[in-house]
Amino acid sequence: MLPDIASLNAAVRAGTTSRADLLAEAATKATSAAGHAVYLHTTFDAAIEVARAADAADRAGKPLHPLAGLPVSVKDLYDIAGEVTRAASAARQDAAPATADATVVARLRAAGAALIGRTNMTEFAFSGVGINPHFGTPVNPCDSSVARIPGGSSSGAAVSVAIGTAVAGLGSDTGGSIRIPAALCGIVGFKPTSRRVPLTGAFPLSYTLDTACAMARTLTDCIAVDSVIADVPFIPQMKASTAIHLAIPRQLVLDDLDEPVSKAFDRAIGRLSAAGVRIEHVDMPELTELASLNAAGGFSAPESYAHHRALLAIHRDLYDPRVVTRIERGAAMSAADYIALHRARLDWIARMEARMAPFDAVVCPTVPMVAPPIAPLVEDDTLFFRTNGLLLRNTSAFNFLDGCSVSLPCHAPDELPVGLMLSQGPMRDAQLLGTALALESLVHPSRRGG
Amino acid sequence: MLPDIASLNAAVRAGTTSRADLLAEAATKATSAAGHAVYLHTTFDAAIEVARAADAADRAGKPLHPLAGLPVSVKDLYDIAGEVTRAASAARQDAAPATADATVVARLRAAGAALIGRTNMTEFAFSGVGINPHFGTPVNPCDSSVARIPGGSSSGAAVSVAIGTAVAGLGSDTGGSIRIPAALCGIVGFKPTSRRVPLTGAFPLSYTLDTACAMARTLTDCIAVDSVIADVPFIPQMKASTAIHLAIPRQLVLDDLDEPVSKAFDRAIGRLSAAGVRIEHVDMPELTELASLNAAGGFSAPESYAHHRALLAIHRDLYDPRVVTRIERGAAMSAADYIALHRARLDWIARMEARMAPFDAVVCPTVPMVAPPIAPLVEDDTLFFRTNGLLLRNTSAFNFLDGCSVSLPCHAPDELPVGLMLSQGPMRDAQLLGTALALESLVHPSRRGG
Repeated sequence: MLPDIASLNAAVRAGTTSRADLLAEAATKATSAAGHAVYLHTTFDAAIEVARAADAADRAGKPLHPLAGLPVSVKDLYDIAGEVTRAASAARQDAAPATADATVVARLRAAGAALIGRTNMTEFAFSGVGINPHFGTPVNPCDSSVARIPGGSSSGAAVSVAIGTAVAGLGSDTGGSIRIPAALCGIVGFKPTSRRVPLTGAFPLSYTLDTACAMARTLTDCIAVDSVIADVPFIPQMKASTAIHLAIPRQLVLDDLDEPVSKAFDRAIGRLSAAGVRIEHVDMPELTELASLNAAGGFSAPESYAHHRALLAIHRDLYDPRVVTRIERGAAMSAADYIALHRARLDWIARMEARMAPFDAVVCPTVPMVAPPIAPLVEDDTLFFRTNGLLLRNTSAFNFLDGCSVSLPCHAPDELPVGLMLSQGPMRDAQLLGTALALESLVHPSRRGG
Repeated sequence: MLPDIASLNAAVRAGTTSRADLLAEAATKATSAAGHAVYLHTTFDAAIEVARAADAADRAGKPLHPLAGLPVSVKDLYDIAGEVTRAASAARQDAAPATADATVVARLRAAGAALIGRTNMTEFAFSGVGINPHFGTPVNPCDSSVARIPGGSSSGAAVSVAIGTAVAGLGSDTGGSIRIPAALCGIVGFKPTSRRVPLTGAFPLSYTLDTACAMARTLTDCIAVDSVIADVPFIPQMKASTAIHLAIPRQLVLDDLDEPVSKAFDRAIGRLSAAGVRIEHVDMPELTELASLNAAGGFSAPESYAHHRALLAIHRDLYDPRVVTRIERGAAMSAADYIALHRARLDWIARMEARMAPFDAVVCPTVPMVAPPIAPLVEDDTLFFRTNGLLLRNTSAFNFLDGCSVSLPCHAPDELPVGLMLSQGPMRDAQLLGTALALESLVHPSRRGG
């Protein structure tokens, strides 16, 4: 993993490296990892030009954004002018190249980020596992002894950061697609309230839930990217840890935890308590309603079916069958049931906001397991869908909440990565991030900064 | 009709009347119009108490809102604590009384408005005609020789203002339900951008299109109510008439005009031109797409079906059959088609906004006809649905636009009422109202102020 953005800029200022050198090193790492299916398309030459231009502007005394000239990867579902947005699907192979950058890509480019390449993902962003049958599955770098899943759907985005080829991976989060791979790969992922960041030029999964966001080494780096893509400077509501009050829900989120997850999570909660954070176990029975609320496919099934039915009519045979199964569930839903789901969600959000009001954030493990090996999941549909359900369980609750949520690493250096998730309701991003910034080094004492 | 709000307050200040006297006169008029089905429920005693309290507060030197102590009517679809919200339907007769005021009602009450009663409406706000088979149809006061429709769905709201029982009628506009009765009854109706005004405690027709808003004698009075119910003080973007640039669409909105409508509209346009307003005939081919976009029932059919299906299962026989027909069209729509309609609308809005960008407003007749007699429409389903389609045609275009729109009277004193409509895109309310304020007295020179 690269040092954090502030450390990289300090090294450049100190003259020990340049943005062009950093970019060349990132390109070399990306090339040597080519067998790991992280990038679907790279643009090293253009990125190095951007890095050189930033170095030159810096020498000329021009003010630069901290991201200027540093490598950033872009998930394959965002339009980049002149490139084909495949959303990692074989069915999009004959799509026309994008004529304009997605808004978030344009904003990153305007901040000076060096866009190093398009990252692999779950086909059309379906599933939290990260397996892609068309382009291969990015291997999680957390374990050299066995190929483990990276998590999804922003699988390549997470690995692009974890192997040191990008300071940030632009991805998306519809049910956990930023936070799940961040947790499984040991980095930070921040999903803002969806409406804060425009989705123009992003290939849709769910119009209701899709969120443009990013992963990085630290929360500060995630916030730097968020401020650029939301085009709103971040003003954190900072608090002392002793003034922070967290809720651990009694329902759902602690069920069926892997032993390494419960161990790392309990240890982190212990450190927070020892530092004076008030932590309370709280009843949130609303969380047990989610399974039945979403039993007919939730928002993603009908919304993706509306978007895909024309392409399915032509290229159904080119889709991952597991993805087709999930999209086609949406065909059977009536408009009335879909509308009723939206209304039920509003009611559910209001009740959850009342439960969360006394707390700075809700805390729970991001995912209930450490990254499982890839091979059995490729073979076994039942195992795949059960694993996918578990991976998405905790994260998706906060997408349904229309909330904001961050996954912070909380494992020890010799352990497989485990994520601790802090979450809040709609548009409470400043409160959540202020809380998470105050707690980040307590949650993961060995990994703050560069 | 009562004088406008400023004139009433001036009369009170001059000591020629009091708010309590005004209220008592309004109650007397409402009582003598009891056969006209304007109010479904009156609360004269409580309203007079509010008027007296405002008089007393005024004598004590307390600052008062201009609406304080003046009579305001409330459409039967808004919750008022302790009253049953029937939405003018027999099927709601056993509904429980509301436990809280709708947000807009609470805001009017906080401003000191004297809520005089609940006004009649089209059952469940369906249709722009204003006929109600359960409670009778409010008679349009514009013609003493024949009973003409008031327009709908806020039928009683319009008549409550037109006969001088209220300074403003709180209603709602989903496809034209404020602007159509305002036009047919010769008063002003303003439909703001929907999201500006909360709908909590309003019985829904379309979650997507419903807008809480009001009618009054003048645009200034409509703005006074809007500032209260939106809880945002209005800051108009005023312009000289010679700096105003209007677009008349070449498509749809001038088709099949009644002779009295085209005469009054052309005359008003002539006055605007003579005053230096630039008026251009503009191609807006998007307007011709609306019929096919909404062919499957638009938003109202599936959204009202989602809301009504439980009640229909119990009380279908108590509904107006014409209303049931329209609600049940929504049962057949798939979620995918409904979602696609939302996406098509966003695309349509973007294209329309580009067409409208060079102009301060789009101008056209509010409805293509003057108020037709009630009796034939009660008898003849075909005539009813054809008339309803024509009444809604122009107004509903700007609901689909998610825009803001105002209907101003433009007829001569001896003519049946005709409305001229000025419209703009989403959240352009300040621009639209500034334009309309500058033009109101030109559009209707005989009826400005008290």
